[in-house]
Amino acid sequence: MRFVLLVEYDGTCFSGFQKQKRGERTVQGVLETAAAEVFGVPVSVSASGRTDAGVHARGQVCQLDGETSIPAVKLRECFNRLLPPDCKVLSSAEAPAGFDCTRAVKRKTYVYSAYYAPCEMPLLSRYAARLRERPSADKMREAARLLCGEHDFKAFSSVGSSAKTSVRTVYAVEIAERKQDGYTMYEISVTGNGFLYNMVRILAGEIFAVGCGKSTQFIGKAFETGERSLIAKTASAEGLTLAQVDYGFPLFGIPEEK
Amino acid sequence: MRFVLLVEYDGTCFSGFQKQKRGERTVQGVLETAAAEVFGVPVSVSASGRTDAGVHARGQVCQLDGETSIPAVKLRECFNRLLPPDCKVLSSAEAPAGFDCTRAVKRKTYVYSAYYAPCEMPLLSRYAARLRERPSADKMREAARLLCGEHDFKAFSSVGSSAKTSVRTVYAVEIAERKQDGYTMYEISVTGNGFLYNMVRILAGEIFAVGCGKSTQFIGKAFETGERSLIAKTASAEGLTLAQVDYGFPLFGIPEEK
Repeated sequence: MRFVLLVEYDGTCFSGFQKQKRGERTVQGVLETAAAEVFGVPVSVSASGRTDAGVHARGQVCQLDGETSIPAVKLRECFNRLLPPDCKVLSSAEAPAGFDCTRAVKRKTYVYSAYYAPCEMPLLSRYAARLRERPSADKMREAARLLCGEHDFKAFSSVGSSAKTSVRTVYAVEIAERKQDGYTMYEISVTGNGFLYNMVRILAGEIFAVGCGKSTQFIGKAFETGERSLIAKTASAEGLTLAQVDYGFPLFGIPEEK
Repeated sequence: MRFVLLVEYDGTCFSGFQKQKRGERTVQGVLETAAAEVFGVPVSVSASGRTDAGVHARGQVCQLDGETSIPAVKLRECFNRLLPPDCKVLSSAEAPAGFDCTRAVKRKTYVYSAYYAPCEMPLLSRYAARLRERPSADKMREAARLLCGEHDFKAFSSVGSSAKTSVRTVYAVEIAERKQDGYTMYEISVTGNGFLYNMVRILAGEIFAVGCGKSTQFIGKAFETGERSLIAKTASAEGLTLAQVDYGFPLFGIPEEK
């Protein structure tokens, strides 16, 4: 029987989702340790996609195969008793017949958060990067518009991307600006049908660069040439959160609140 | 010369503000280590008040005495180069003549944050406590109204409070409720002329208890009798943040943003 888990994690103390050979702490590792205890046998846990070291998730979808008499909705509690505080299962359910959480993805939404302030702020810096210059939200929205649509995003991926094609569709890039006492928070929400290695962090880097004065013409040139060097540096990991994975139908039913 | 510092810290990995004999990591400790390097001699750093282990601050005011040729506004950068990521100086200034950051306090505002959700949420639990029952914000506001004003808050302090009198004035208690996907966040902002040991966490505990159905009559009885046992348990430390210390005049000028 296949089960799906909606998983939230604080990526700060994880070396990414995927298990590492050197025994580093990973999200997959802690989930598989818990799963082995719940099911009484070793169980593999896979995800809608890997997240890098330091990247957070509030809506990662994972799956595992196993036999148990525990009702699917009760697996959440069983896992949470065994999981560490920085990784918890928000919902659990039986997977629909033939479902695969990696291949069935329709859309994913990531949020990249960054703040502009005169100095580092300890209560923000765990989940947001710090900007050294104040970007213009209007200019950021200009860049966002150019990035939407079906494009060859080769220039927006790190070397080492193993994908067969670098053509992806970005459905929406939304920019939110929130002025607070002493700092301004910027959030870039990116929804697409899939993302290349480091693509969201590179998109975010370029959007902030345009916000701080870089010409938008490099975006079109980068689509044409696939030249990584035309585009800004990869934004740092702590600002990135995998917000939602969409399969075109609800996997977990309506989120319950007692 | 006396200097004042506006300090933000994530209290998670500190054993409170005050230096401990056993060499535990404290906010005062890291500030004094940095100060000794900046001034070249040992320097004592004091605060508007101590915060307990695990309690955060985004507007703690600290002071120190020392001689330096560094302009007061530049001290921020000097400190921040030496301070760890979870404690930073947001502003620095010369103190007005005769100023004492502890005795001159007019008002303080604390915010207590807690969320209601079916399970622990890793991306919230560093800065908010988890509620096991859903409180009614309206009932919480009833409790809030009763707690405002000048009262003997003896029943709302932990044993070990060394204050001469337990009469304090609470100017305002505000309740905010924010419904999000999968959880509801509650914020209690408390402004007063001073607080007894654990007083804000005990007020928060009682407000949530009333929100979950406890009668408000215990509040009046607790003011009359000073009986700690009439009032709810102390709410946990991670939900509490010292938001602002008010001296009746701006210590740091207008917060700059380039």
